[in-house]
Amino acid sequence: MSYEDTIVALATPSGTGAISIIRISGKDAIVIGDQIFKSVRGKKLGLQKSHTIHLGHIIDGKKVLDEVLVSVFRGPNSYTGENVLEISCHGSPYIQQQVLQLILRKGCRAASAGEFTLKAFLNGKMDLSQAEAVADLIASDSAASHEIALNQMRGGFSSEIESLREELLNFASLIELELDFSQEDVEFANREQFNELLSRISAVLKKLIDSFALGNVLKHGIPVAIVGQPNVGKSTLLNALLNEDRAIVSSIAGTTRDTVEDSISIQGVNFRFIDTAGIRSTRDEVEQIGIERTFSKIEQAKLIIFLFDGPDFDREQLNNLKDQYPNKRILPICNKLDRLTKKQIHDIEEEIQNVLFISAKNGTGIDTLQETLFGLVDTGALSGDETIVSNSRHYDALLKALEEIQKVKEGMDIEISSDLLAIDIRQALFHLGEITGSVTTDDLLGNIFSNFCIGK
Amino acid sequence: MSYEDTIVALATPSGTGAISIIRISGKDAIVIGDQIFKSVRGKKLGLQKSHTIHLGHIIDGKKVLDEVLVSVFRGPNSYTGENVLEISCHGSPYIQQQVLQLILRKGCRAASAGEFTLKAFLNGKMDLSQAEAVADLIASDSAASHEIALNQMRGGFSSEIESLREELLNFASLIELELDFSQEDVEFANREQFNELLSRISAVLKKLIDSFALGNVLKHGIPVAIVGQPNVGKSTLLNALLNEDRAIVSSIAGTTRDTVEDSISIQGVNFRFIDTAGIRSTRDEVEQIGIERTFSKIEQAKLIIFLFDGPDFDREQLNNLKDQYPNKRILPICNKLDRLTKKQIHDIEEEIQNVLFISAKNGTGIDTLQETLFGLVDTGALSGDETIVSNSRHYDALLKALEEIQKVKEGMDIEISSDLLAIDIRQALFHLGEITGSVTTDDLLGNIFSNFCIGK
Repeated sequence: MSYEDTIVALATPSGTGAISIIRISGKDAIVIGDQIFKSVRGKKLGLQKSHTIHLGHIIDGKKVLDEVLVSVFRGPNSYTGENVLEISCHGSPYIQQQVLQLILRKGCRAASAGEFTLKAFLNGKMDLSQAEAVADLIASDSAASHEIALNQMRGGFSSEIESLREELLNFASLIELELDFSQEDVEFANREQFNELLSRISAVLKKLIDSFALGNVLKHGIPVAIVGQPNVGKSTLLNALLNEDRAIVSSIAGTTRDTVEDSISIQGVNFRFIDTAGIRSTRDEVEQIGIERTFSKIEQAKLIIFLFDGPDFDREQLNNLKDQYPNKRILPICNKLDRLTKKQIHDIEEEIQNVLFISAKNGTGIDTLQETLFGLVDTGALSGDETIVSNSRHYDALLKALEEIQKVKEGMDIEISSDLLAIDIRQALFHLGEITGSVTTDDLLGNIFSNFCIGK
Repeated sequence: MSYEDTIVALATPSGTGAISIIRISGKDAIVIGDQIFKSVRGKKLGLQKSHTIHLGHIIDGKKVLDEVLVSVFRGPNSYTGENVLEISCHGSPYIQQQVLQLILRKGCRAASAGEFTLKAFLNGKMDLSQAEAVADLIASDSAASHEIALNQMRGGFSSEIESLREELLNFASLIELELDFSQEDVEFANREQFNELLSRISAVLKKLIDSFALGNVLKHGIPVAIVGQPNVGKSTLLNALLNEDRAIVSSIAGTTRDTVEDSISIQGVNFRFIDTAGIRSTRDEVEQIGIERTFSKIEQAKLIIFLFDGPDFDREQLNNLKDQYPNKRILPICNKLDRLTKKQIHDIEEEIQNVLFISAKNGTGIDTLQETLFGLVDTGALSGDETIVSNSRHYDALLKALEEIQKVKEGMDIEISSDLLAIDIRQALFHLGEITGSVTTDDLLGNIFSNFCIGK
């Protein structure tokens, strides 16, 4: 396998549709195209301009495989930076396979996951964080995650990192130059300016690191566990939130034996609701497994909805949850509002702070609950057009870079020797470079692009 | 709903992929495109040439929805004959929905199934049988069905019908002219030439009608029922043929309770194998249902494989099958060859003509069985590059047209009056026109295009 190979893949989802697109990229793309494509106008693809479309037939010897449109892109003005053909054929799996096999026989290699985007990165069409944003964009399923990915794809975030990295690189060179003159005790690098740069870098890194809490939540959705005794209406609440019959609802206690998950988007932010088996002691072995899963699901949740259905709720359980998960936000919610007397409502309000009343069955209070949930997410950074880091690889690299920058600062404070300083600066440069891809290894690239889909 | 509307649909399979294509067609396609697309080069789509591709962003007010490539096709040089845009966006369901909704808000209508191809037909880009071939092409899943559809799409078949229809139309006009001069007993239409034309049309229609038997089989695959007593190895045979573990195999008699179907392609022809519950008397209610289904499946099959596993097979059952289905080809196959003695093999060969011996478990004899199956299909017409009718609507119209042509011929023979002759000719013209779409009704078009996928 070489990055020089001409590669081919199906770029549209597999299965039957009106159209499917087969994409070829590499120096031989157009030459191979001319071996398998016969334009109705008779002109070779090799003679066509970039960004033009041609009607004709895919031919295997004398056999016609399909009538297609072929789009020609000439490198470097293409997605990958190489010559690219996109064959728009009829959306039948049989035809897709026949055309792909023909192209493979002509000397193309089947593209591995994300290899088109990898080529775009290697050919300088985008930096690494932009390439990663392509996969995030395709995976995005809410307004918020979509906006973060699109923003990152435009490169605002990585260009900021890259320019800081270059400034730092300058100082590194000056300090390394000092090593050559170490006998003479000169300082090429202005220590005051250098300190100022380090502070600036720290501030930017800290802001980006802080944004990850939100970015991660927006990207993956906020996991919310719905917990409560059997038959208080957990599944009904989930259905009311999802507005569909996702979970099986019955009045027999213990109906929900497995955990059920589903997401809704509240004002562009995804909440992932986890319905759980009711918590109670049971001898039913299957149900017991469900209860154990409940606790492991609560571990993963950011928020816990504690659902009960009247004054006889299990105070001990609520207190246990608070003790067991002191760092998780617990929302106490009283269901079956329609069955409660005014006195009961009053008493519950007295006993539990910030309790919400709903009727999951009638849909009462569901809007308020959704607003409360959205209010718990600090989306300030979103509206302020600020950069949000949502990629955990970037987060790790930012943390490590910050750590090294702190070391450099401390070193400066205690006036360590330039050679030791230079080592720490190089480390910080390395971690910053990892984000934009100025520093890469095959392993790193392999890890990143294996998460892409084939054909991208 | 009007055919004048500008329509939009997702043209690639739904779901996540590298790319998805959104297609717009209609007189406002490019105008609408310019409202939602901003080219990176700044030039409006309205100023671009046909068959060119442009990089830019889909924008909803100030919000960027995606970075895309837009292909411009100017009518009549497009699939539909109208202005067409194809937007190649990132293959995320979220983005697909956002972009589609934006375009709908700008005044496009969501396309109904097959509406792009319907427009192509209405705008004279293809005749009706070519349009129908587009759907067949997308549905084709074997070399044979693919070839038939592609051949039909190229129009060889319908252009032959159309030219015969025009000759017939000429004669119809001449004969109708005679009606105006009926007092004078003139004959404008040369009866000898007319007779010759009728014979020629009959011959073509008969050939096309005959080809349907093969065409239908090639399009839908040949259903083969595998029948036999419990535990003779029906599921194992199916697995051996399919080369995978499709059916559940166990040594407990009566394992296969439901019928299982799957297809293999033998030299480009699809065989649809139907594994059936064993036939025996049983008190197990569920198994009894399975046995009833077996008989109804045999009804649908073209071929029956009667499977047994040694000299003690149920002669009565084999004879019953032969009596019950005198018109179906029955292939007697003896399984578990590895366990038989030479004497047993000899005795079975003596008793049953054309018996095949296999060992489904070891794969012995499976190749021969496949060759035998393929040999039973008369594919002569396929290799001879002859036209094959595979569409049952065409078959019906051909039958009716032939019937009317015969009537005309009989009328000529008994020298009926020109006015009666003219009526029969008009009927024949009508049915021939139904095939190519020279004669259509909204109902007919509705029926045909509702079988298409959305976006085609």
